[in-house]
Amino acid sequence: VLHTKRTDALDGVIGGTEETTTGVMRLRAMAREGVLRYPIVAVNDADTKHLFDNRYGTGQSTIDGIIRATNFLLAGSKFVVAGYGWCGRGLASRARGAGAEVLITEVDPTKALEAVMDGFRVMSMNEAATIGDVFCTVTGNKNVLGKEHFEGMKNGAIICNSGHFNVEIDIPALEKMASSKRTTRSFVEEYSMKDGRKINLLGEGRLINLVSAEGHPPSVMDMSFADQALSVEYMVKNHQSLERTVYRVPADLDKRVARLKLESMGIKIDRLTPEQEEYLAGWSEGT
Amino acid sequence: VLHTKRTDALDGVIGGTEETTTGVMRLRAMAREGVLRYPIVAVNDADTKHLFDNRYGTGQSTIDGIIRATNFLLAGSKFVVAGYGWCGRGLASRARGAGAEVLITEVDPTKALEAVMDGFRVMSMNEAATIGDVFCTVTGNKNVLGKEHFEGMKNGAIICNSGHFNVEIDIPALEKMASSKRTTRSFVEEYSMKDGRKINLLGEGRLINLVSAEGHPPSVMDMSFADQALSVEYMVKNHQSLERTVYRVPADLDKRVARLKLESMGIKIDRLTPEQEEYLAGWSEGT
Amino acid sequence: VLHTKRTDALDGVIGGTEETTTGVMRLRAMAREGVLRYPIVAVNDADTKHLFDNRYGTGQSTIDGIIRATNFLLAGSKFVVAGYGWCGRGLASRARGAGAEVLITEVDPTKALEAVMDGFRVMSMNEAATIGDVFCTVTGNKNVLGKEHFEGMKNGAIICNSGHFNVEIDIPALEKMASSKRTTRSFVEEYSMKDGRKINLLGEGRLINLVSAEGHPPSVMDMSFADQALSVEYMVKNHQSLERTVYRVPADLDKRVARLKLESMGIKIDRLTPEQEEYLAGWSEGT
Amino acid sequence: VLHTKRTDALDGVIGGTEETTTGVMRLRAMAREGVLRYPIVAVNDADTKHLFDNRYGTGQSTIDGIIRATNFLLAGSKFVVAGYGWCGRGLASRARGAGAEVLITEVDPTKALEAVMDGFRVMSMNEAATIGDVFCTVTGNKNVLGKEHFEGMKNGAIICNSGHFNVEIDIPALEKMASSKRTTRSFVEEYSMKDGRKINLLGEGRLINLVSAEGHPPSVMDMSFADQALSVEYMVKNHQSLERTVYRVPADLDKRVARLKLESMGIKIDRLTPEQEEYLAGWSEGT
Repeated sequence: VLHTKRTDALDGVIGGTEETTTGVMRLRAMAREGVLRYPIVAVNDADTKHLFDNRYGTGQSTIDGIIRATNFLLAGSKFVVAGYGWCGRGLASRARGAGAEVLITEVDPTKALEAVMDGFRVMSMNEAATIGDVFCTVTGNKNVLGKEHFEGMKNGAIICNSGHFNVEIDIPALEKMASSKRTTRSFVEEYSMKDGRKINLLGEGRLINLVSAEGHPPSVMDMSFADQALSVEYMVKNHQSLERTVYRVPADLDKRVARLKLESMGIKIDRLTPEQEEYLAGWSEGT
Repeated sequence: VLHTKRTDALDGVIGGTEETTTGVMRLRAMAREGVLRYPIVAVNDADTKHLFDNRYGTGQSTIDGIIRATNFLLAGSKFVVAGYGWCGRGLASRARGAGAEVLITEVDPTKALEAVMDGFRVMSMNEAATIGDVFCTVTGNKNVLGKEHFEGMKNGAIICNSGHFNVEIDIPALEKMASSKRTTRSFVEEYSMKDGRKINLLGEGRLINLVSAEGHPPSVMDMSFADQALSVEYMVKNHQSLERTVYRVPADLDKRVARLKLESMGIKIDRLTPEQEEYLAGWSEGT
Repeated sequence: VLHTKRTDALDGVIGGTEETTTGVMRLRAMAREGVLRYPIVAVNDADTKHLFDNRYGTGQSTIDGIIRATNFLLAGSKFVVAGYGWCGRGLASRARGAGAEVLITEVDPTKALEAVMDGFRVMSMNEAATIGDVFCTVTGNKNVLGKEHFEGMKNGAIICNSGHFNVEIDIPALEKMASSKRTTRSFVEEYSMKDGRKINLLGEGRLINLVSAEGHPPSVMDMSFADQALSVEYMVKNHQSLERTVYRVPADLDKRVARLKLESMGIKIDRLTPEQEEYLAGWSEGT
Repeated sequence: VLHTKRTDALDGVIGGTEETTTGVMRLRAMAREGVLRYPIVAVNDADTKHLFDNRYGTGQSTIDGIIRATNFLLAGSKFVVAGYGWCGRGLASRARGAGAEVLITEVDPTKALEAVMDGFRVMSMNEAATIGDVFCTVTGNKNVLGKEHFEGMKNGAIICNSGHFNVEIDIPALEKMASSKRTTRSFVEEYSMKDGRKINLLGEGRLINLVSAEGHPPSVMDMSFADQALSVEYMVKNHQSLERTVYRVPADLDKRVARLKLESMGIKIDRLTPEQEEYLAGWSEGT
């Protein structure tokens, strides 16, 4: 997960690109409030970025981070994923693929319903808290795991975050509830609750795929970086017409990155024939 | 798959709703050309419709249709899905879930890349034609399977369509290539090629989930119908401000359908706390 | 599922073959009690039979039978499989592949643990009874679903059997508990409980894959039939040395069927080199 | 993977236990040749060992080892598993669960056919060699990857072993074919072929789950260790009747370990009623 560099001297700045979901949300909020000081291309929103990096990159690297930190057997465990956005889907898919029974919590009813139809157990975090062996937050929000959840957790529960920041887990609340803590492995803090239960916090609640693993593999980041590079080129070429707002990655640029990636993997796909293009665009035939 | 009724007498018509992907494409084309004669709500585009009906409904019912028609063992077979849109994804997921090795063809590079990352084999139809045991088109386009593909297919190949219309397979080409045909089971025409190979066409290339199965199960159509009913109510209430164009289903209506469905399944989900709503909307904290 | 023909006139009978798990259990019991009147080859126990027919055949055809009978959407449903033998595994895998959340009940702790490690929810039937939308018994035993389970089931629960006989569900108990019943679709009896709940029994509790579908697909039965044919040949050639007991299918015959099947699918596999055979048989190298 | 300790002074030795598949093969070969000097209990063959440790332990830890060594994205990659025994199945399942397209090679036709029916691509290693991105051997045999395979591999191929010993890959052949090698990451040797291709050998061909990861997680080893401990107790109690041969773990001991593990996970399962036990043992009812 990369952030655009910040500079105090904004003279001559043409624009910036933003790589993260929550970064884009904040930049949009800044644009709405009129405090954005140069144009932004929201690289995160490119299909070749968020459909891949957030899903396949976060999925693999988060599982990687959890296993490196704990060497915990996922097969047969109950794995709770908070959030069923692109990151959450990727993570849920990989946790299931590792043999875990996966439970999903969500605040959006449509996403919750998709999780149900994808065969996952869906419930409130209050309920999931008492069932899970491992919890991972990927919501972009704060206090997704808090006091009321820690109170219900099983002895030995493992909690971590692969979402936005270390605010997804309410660590101050956990600190207050604990009588003591100790480091049992690198990146594993064992909190002893006053009632004797232990809760294991990984990586101080920071992004576990960056803390104890290596972040996204290069073979998924290459697309994001291609989007970055081509977006910068786009801004340089078009900066005279760009305003202080957040732009989407141009669709043809986005498709070009996908084509380049397929080529690099040696994969050939079909192209529409002129007859097919006409059929798709029309309405007089086949209706 | 439902179509809105058509009427020649348009006096007093308030509007219509459209249930299908390709129907919406055509209505949008009509709106662009100025020939649309009343407002349309594109029910197909509601999240609670296309994310569910097209994926989970088409997925299950297409497999159902193919098995009813053929009693073919999917485990260990090579199953080619043409198109990786919502319908194609649903179908690919169910074919894999039935034990098939799934091959995907696409014309869109981003979708093709998603299919690769989802673990499917992706290639051109020319290549897939020589490998597949079963082929199903779900593209919304025409002549997706044609002469050059029939020429390469294995003896005994099964071809069918669950996309838009019976134009996805170029049946006239198949007829021309065949020396004879016979009905071997209900909904199975066996075409004998001049070189001795047999190709089995299911349901005359019409939607196989409607031909030999029962279409989408009620428990996925209920959401589409709720979108239809609530969209009609919406048009009645707002028709004075609606123009002759294609509208999206209002987002709050869409979410309401999702909430109702979850309730009907006895599933409770979390709600954002005021503190969390503020965090999501802001940019000053946690950046 | 096939049974060897029975004859009262046993003069000159060389032997028989048996195709089913529970059939073999009974024949072994008969052999133990000294009442078996001719030799049996337990075709069911051949790897090329029970590892394939029971798993992939029962898996697909049972789902097929349930969907044909009900047109019920499996995605998002809770599907209870009673028994995690070969049939149960096949069925659980297909139900999951259709998007269901799968719950397993077992009496054998090792199999129960495998189900857990395979990512399924495992629990007693008393607990599962209150959760499931669909129940299917594949145990080879009797009264696996009985009065105490019917009492806890949700309104609208669907129950069926794909195991041995119609004794797996205690239908007399269900009849006694119901105030009335009616046929709502072919092969669906809706029992109205005195407390108002409805329970849907499919196919009178008989094997649902035979009642409402077509049984195992030919492409899995071909292996069983090859085992049958080659076992009959084996008995004819060796009948003078065979006793009135239950024999396994000879291992080389079993492997031969597997090789023939692979060839028919156009699949080539490796063969051990002489050097590798020696390595596997020895103990002096590599230890 | 643990080995029993070896001692030169065998006076008073009661017996030993053996934890690995290939170890048991060698001990059986020694018993056949009359050179086994004390009784062995083949812990590896206990259901609670080989059905779990080899499958779920090897599966997770091998993927873990490969990712730690390379940070390679498995989603969308072609992952070749040599051997479809318990270890191979576990690994294939986890690689698929990580989004890879999985190819299997086997020498046993029945296992090869199971792999086909499980939806994997099955072929000879000569063919797979030209397709795979990652290769992992889990056969217990030697030279499973050799000169002829290295010759066909793609530039950048990753090869490793999680089977028996570092003999599964013919490293001397690789050394001979290479013009140079260098260490690109810990546990990654990049061999430069004379034709310019690079082949990456992980962990010098030693067990990758032990080289770059931490071996099996404790929550799967606990069962093996329970089998070990209870088998030792069994040998102490029964040593006067044990001969210099290889014994299976007693079935009741094996089931007891499964029950203990389920209890530790808080899982309750059903028990047969007396009526059900009688039904299973008999043959007069239900036939």
